[in-house]
Amino acid sequence: MSHAIEFYFDFSSPYSYLASEWIEDLASRHGRAVDYRPVLLGAAFKATQQQVLVKVPLKGDYSRRDFARSARFQGLPFVVPEPFPIGTLAAARTFLWLKDARRPEALPFLHAAFRTYFVRGRDISQDPVLHDLWRECGLDPDAVKEAISQPALKEKLKALGDESLARGVFGAPFIFVDGEPFWGNDRLPQIERWLASGPF
Amino acid sequence: MSHAIEFYFDFSSPYSYLASEWIEDLASRHGRAVDYRPVLLGAAFKATQQQVLVKVPLKGDYSRRDFARSARFQGLPFVVPEPFPIGTLAAARTFLWLKDARRPEALPFLHAAFRTYFVRGRDISQDPVLHDLWRECGLDPDAVKEAISQPALKEKLKALGDESLARGVFGAPFIFVDGEPFWGNDRLPQIERWLASGPF
Repeated sequence: MSHAIEFYFDFSSPYSYLASEWIEDLASRHGRAVDYRPVLLGAAFKATQQQVLVKVPLKGDYSRRDFARSARFQGLPFVVPEPFPIGTLAAARTFLWLKDARRPEALPFLHAAFRTYFVRGRDISQDPVLHDLWRECGLDPDAVKEAISQPALKEKLKALGDESLARGVFGAPFIFVDGEPFWGNDRLPQIERWLASGPF
Repeated sequence: MSHAIEFYFDFSSPYSYLASEWIEDLASRHGRAVDYRPVLLGAAFKATQQQVLVKVPLKGDYSRRDFARSARFQGLPFVVPEPFPIGTLAAARTFLWLKDARRPEALPFLHAAFRTYFVRGRDISQDPVLHDLWRECGLDPDAVKEAISQPALKEKLKALGDESLARGVFGAPFIFVDGEPFWGNDRLPQIERWLASGPF
């Protein structure tokens, strides 16, 4: 099997949600696995002096429209949640913990977290919402809280963020295929060609 | 015939060049005309507090790679010119003059200007390059200089820029189809669906 597709994402990124809905199917059609890597875009935006997209004059309004239209284009349900964006530290830590422990709940949690925020519009930075989300995925909230408060896990997420910046990840989704970087949900056609017929 | 597709562009925008190579064919397949509207992105970037793309840390490096890869994806020749970006006032005024006068050289000039900069890598902000470009398009340099120095034409380009900002044009290419805004060369699939089957 060829190298896994590396998929950097933030749970607060609408285009990451949209891409998370096609990446597995695409990968598996080409005999690839997906290596999901949670990052916190706040750090990347700081390092690259970027503003939060929806706060940029004109571009912000367009973006909200484009999020929703891009979702309809893919046939996916979508709401612009309020508040938006949010901090996704707890969700990112939860996913990283599940992934590192090779727990079967990892991937279901990833999709449930995205959908809770971008389909049901519930703020996954809030404790009651997180508790519901964890329980939905068959996880015990006390056990998760204990697991994601471990210093080693916290450090691991931070190290992943530093590594992502060192690799040039300034936004999300940010997808590496055989080391080639593709930024954005709209690079699907290029990724597809790369997987089908190699570098171009 | 339905409404023309409005195509806002800057001659210094690589993605505008790439989109200029497919927009006419796409439009004509759907019975549409293209209304080309030159703008100067510098003003838009100022109004929206954006930096020049290639100067953004990390994002700049990625962008240069993505320009070239996107061109290869479309099967088009491309170089990242030096210097980049450049001021495109004279080229924009030339196009606007030709367009307003309904001169047959308008569209050939548009493509020649893009290709001179992005294929041959020649700096179309420089007088000797502009002179060659004008002559290539069958235009007399003295006549063009006279035409594009008219205050009314200068004002018209400025008014077009102000109008574009009022419509939310913060980047290029920026394409309106039936009033619906689409930003970027990578919105081709969405524009195609809109033209084929209407709003979605």
